[in-house]
Amino acid sequence: MLDIIAFDADDTLWHNELYYVQAQDRFKQVLAGYGVCELADQRLDATETSNVKVYGYGIKSFTLSMIETAIALTGGRITGQDIQTILELGKHMLDAEIHLFDQVQETLAMLAQHYPLMLITKGDLFEQERKIARSGLVEYLDYIEIMGEKTPTSYQGLLCKYNLEPERFMMVGNSLRSDIMPVLDIGGQAVYIPYQHTWAHENVADRPAGQQGYYELERLGQLPELIARLEG
Amino acid sequence: MLDIIAFDADDTLWHNELYYVQAQDRFKQVLAGYGVCELADQRLDATETSNVKVYGYGIKSFTLSMIETAIALTGGRITGQDIQTILELGKHMLDAEIHLFDQVQETLAMLAQHYPLMLITKGDLFEQERKIARSGLVEYLDYIEIMGEKTPTSYQGLLCKYNLEPERFMMVGNSLRSDIMPVLDIGGQAVYIPYQHTWAHENVADRPAGQQGYYELERLGQLPELIARLEG
Repeated sequence: MLDIIAFDADDTLWHNELYYVQAQDRFKQVLAGYGVCELADQRLDATETSNVKVYGYGIKSFTLSMIETAIALTGGRITGQDIQTILELGKHMLDAEIHLFDQVQETLAMLAQHYPLMLITKGDLFEQERKIARSGLVEYLDYIEIMGEKTPTSYQGLLCKYNLEPERFMMVGNSLRSDIMPVLDIGGQAVYIPYQHTWAHENVADRPAGQQGYYELERLGQLPELIARLEG
Repeated sequence: MLDIIAFDADDTLWHNELYYVQAQDRFKQVLAGYGVCELADQRLDATETSNVKVYGYGIKSFTLSMIETAIALTGGRITGQDIQTILELGKHMLDAEIHLFDQVQETLAMLAQHYPLMLITKGDLFEQERKIARSGLVEYLDYIEIMGEKTPTSYQGLLCKYNLEPERFMMVGNSLRSDIMPVLDIGGQAVYIPYQHTWAHENVADRPAGQQGYYELERLGQLPELIARLEG
């Protein structure tokens, strides 16, 4: 029934958003030193949204947006030393260890015995390649695709490239907007595994409960059982 | 004789390094306001080299390295306003128009009638995708590949992916290190078209004059004539 199983990476296989949340907490501590408290989250979020058109996604974009926001919210009073602290928050994120979720390695190892597995991530190519290389999961992955955006069109392009039929393609991810809705839109199967820290921009509409091809799990370790049931 | 012709993009098809040189000049003007003159180029270059491991290539990396260098060279005295000026230098580069070199469009249009054409760039995925989309050249390109690094291994992977024999693959570019040497290493053909502002890191050793499969041109417009001679 399935020709391939594809996985999102950030916050599906390993922690990612958590590092953003931690860095943002430190960022707010820096701004608190200038009497800036209330607006930090909101302004940073607005700056990121406005910058995504020129910067794209990823930690370097996030770092540049933190610096821009800090200058604006302190009226330019922020010191060079505090900007340096923000630069280091970004580098710390880039160098953070990859923390896989529970049962990720075992689940991929098990599924790789029966299906070709693909990783489909979006965002900064360099950052994603580094994370994948350090994840310890490369041996289970037959294909790796890093896309600028995850839209129905980009998934359709991927299916064409690998000569796959949508109904035999399954995408597993934590983002309704990027991993689930566009795949259902083109007739694929999509398994939603929510993550607690999911980024504000990623929360669209409601879950498409009951829609053809849509499944929901609490954790990745439940995937082999779902697939066995579907295949059975 | 040739199954595909591949082109580097930055400083082969369009200006790129020029924008870095211009931004760096403005960066030095900012630092001159703090009495920092002599060391700016050298320190920025050292910071970039040290950061490439965590940041990768591209304008966002360059911007972050300018900020880090400015803080270090001013002993943290740089103002928020001047950091903002550096942020804007980066955004200005990201939004710069694509300036094609002379005869690029005509040459690609002519070659596209007889050969599949491929673009092979390295660097920031998001930045490169935006530039390609705005270049006006997409209609002539059959394949686009954006790689983290251009090494013999990564070219070999590309040849496998497209099922190409190295001796029937031609790469055209301005960088001996990224476009020419790795392609010659794997038995491909490589056409070197030097660019005046070529980045310091890209100048390796001497030109491999006389080596099998190596050609050198002054400008891209001479490529159809070279190919006609080789095919003839």
